[in-house]
Amino acid sequence: MGLSILGATGSIGRQTLDVAEGLGLEVSALAAGSNAQALETAVRRFRPKLAVLCDEKAAADLRLRLADTGVKVLSGMEGLLEAASLPQADTVLAAMSGAVGLRPALAAIRAGKKLALANKETLVCAGSLVTAAAEAAGVPILPVDSEHSAIFQCLQGQGEVKRILLTASGGPFRNHSAEALKHVTREDALRHPNWSMGPKITVDSATLMNKGLEFIEAMWLFHMPPEKIKVLIHPQSVVHSAVEFADGAVIAQLGSPDMRLPIQLALTWPERKPCPAPALDLTKTAPLTFSEPDLERFPCLGLAMDCAMRPGTADGAVMNAANEEAVRAFLEGRIGFTQIYEIVSRTLEALSGRPGGTLEEILGADEEARRLSKACLSSIS
Amino acid sequence: MGLSILGATGSIGRQTLDVAEGLGLEVSALAAGSNAQALETAVRRFRPKLAVLCDEKAAADLRLRLADTGVKVLSGMEGLLEAASLPQADTVLAAMSGAVGLRPALAAIRAGKKLALANKETLVCAGSLVTAAAEAAGVPILPVDSEHSAIFQCLQGQGEVKRILLTASGGPFRNHSAEALKHVTREDALRHPNWSMGPKITVDSATLMNKGLEFIEAMWLFHMPPEKIKVLIHPQSVVHSAVEFADGAVIAQLGSPDMRLPIQLALTWPERKPCPAPALDLTKTAPLTFSEPDLERFPCLGLAMDCAMRPGTADGAVMNAANEEAVRAFLEGRIGFTQIYEIVSRTLEALSGRPGGTLEEILGADEEARRLSKACLSSIS
Repeated sequence: MGLSILGATGSIGRQTLDVAEGLGLEVSALAAGSNAQALETAVRRFRPKLAVLCDEKAAADLRLRLADTGVKVLSGMEGLLEAASLPQADTVLAAMSGAVGLRPALAAIRAGKKLALANKETLVCAGSLVTAAAEAAGVPILPVDSEHSAIFQCLQGQGEVKRILLTASGGPFRNHSAEALKHVTREDALRHPNWSMGPKITVDSATLMNKGLEFIEAMWLFHMPPEKIKVLIHPQSVVHSAVEFADGAVIAQLGSPDMRLPIQLALTWPERKPCPAPALDLTKTAPLTFSEPDLERFPCLGLAMDCAMRPGTADGAVMNAANEEAVRAFLEGRIGFTQIYEIVSRTLEALSGRPGGTLEEILGADEEARRLSKACLSSIS
Repeated sequence: MGLSILGATGSIGRQTLDVAEGLGLEVSALAAGSNAQALETAVRRFRPKLAVLCDEKAAADLRLRLADTGVKVLSGMEGLLEAASLPQADTVLAAMSGAVGLRPALAAIRAGKKLALANKETLVCAGSLVTAAAEAAGVPILPVDSEHSAIFQCLQGQGEVKRILLTASGGPFRNHSAEALKHVTREDALRHPNWSMGPKITVDSATLMNKGLEFIEAMWLFHMPPEKIKVLIHPQSVVHSAVEFADGAVIAQLGSPDMRLPIQLALTWPERKPCPAPALDLTKTAPLTFSEPDLERFPCLGLAMDCAMRPGTADGAVMNAANEEAVRAFLEGRIGFTQIYEIVSRTLEALSGRPGGTLEEILGADEEARRLSKACLSSIS
């Protein structure tokens, strides 16, 4: 059976293709946003049944490029949903960036696909809905985020959990003063000390919003109340996360900071197979340190932890949408780094507490939050 | 059902009594070497069916002390074997120090008891025999050594193993030069940086012989060839050991250096229950570092790793017996620290390669090694 990859031209998508090749997996569908050239290359390499680009114009371009191949090309959300539920695939790797990944992930679950989930926004926006759908369909959600893959591994075959220890590198500004944070540039923010990732998630790592999103993701993936999740700053990114059990024992997963490891595990689990990622050599790593996160300098993390306390609402979707808009504005040079938090908190303040039980409510909240944060953005930039 | 504790007055034994009390376990038998007063106290606290002291005279003393209690008192190896196979016990915690623990451990297995094993000499001397007996009897051997408990935990529910990472504090002389090692005293050797343990194992930690014994123990417990066991010096003793899997993921168990944790786990597994050991606070631990062991300065480790390569022989028993005699001589001030290695290597050189398939061969090799190492000792001290 085959694999469909949503977000095939991004950082996770490209690494998934390498892993799929290494494992000799059949690729059924490839979907991406707008990069026709990159998707064409991937299609020629893997010959899926279906190729999808969200962007209509780019999809038309791709259709021309692939005219000789006989590969079906679709566009838009409709195309994404078809890629997510293709009968030839038994596994869908969801690696789109942002809330746009929610509906395809849900479609994959409802079509009975095993979901390898890299798109954390799916659970941040609609954790209750998505986990209930997975349970109803009897399909597993296998985490691809390195931290959640670590937690998933640490939970295997063990007893009662006391709490999850979610590690965070702390990002490039870990030691910056509050004042210095106001003056960091786009380029500063894109230099992550340990991980090579796309721009959106790299900025999220710098604000610690990424850890906030992961906090909510962990809550849903592992059915943990927020008070049983503890964030630890661990600048070396060697301990990918850990679990503390009832007796005080801590089980941790360590590895080199290479996404191919969690990607491959999500595709081969419960088996483990040799992986091209470099082996971890503990005698060569820097000393491993751990500290408390500073919620004063990195208030986005606190914002997300607060959202986690309101699981019945659409607050996760609101926060995520505002953050997507604010990070885009930051990447476009329209606002400063610390203004990301301002936009998100103002939007959340205005929209907090809306119901978030159905897909319509969640998509509505997302839309409203984008509208409001754009208004905020034009007022301050 | 009940618990029999062999070695009840030693460091592990006393902590086991605390754990047993915390868990509300019934204690069926208590056995020790020669400390009648300490065993009397333990007997009055737990009221087992049977109390045993190896030493005949001490047992006679204990019989008088316990005259009012109706508790049966036995002595010698006969008594130990009865404590190990008592019908009222379903679990035997084997925590005698030294090769004397071998026969009782084997008796416990043959009587169908679950074996919680702290006495590593049992596997060092007779790994093949003991693991085969456990398999034949269908009883588990649950490790109590913190490293092996860690490895046991790390292996649960995971896939194919690449290798075991056996951590070692490095002992109090980790940074001593070869020259400085010649002049260390008994008192220096008994000051372990992290763990509070009995004198024999504390000296073994200082020579790294303890890690050598654990290397052989791990080989038998986890059915691993020596080339798949890697020793790592980790001075902070926070990572109790780890396992590297086929894909490169490393699963580690971390905890505070408190033996009540692995003792309790061996008694409650597969459940975990709250434990009085202090919780690990990673934000307060020193930075975690790892390095290669230095086999030049600590040749006892290399000696044991070599023995591990000859599993059909009695070399483990020979090495262990010579080490027990040499450490005793060191503790009595008769030889210097680096002479421990000399005694063990000379004994091993003379007796290496003897067959070690049966209990008789192993006990014979043990006896011969003691005779020879005593001769060595009188020639040099």
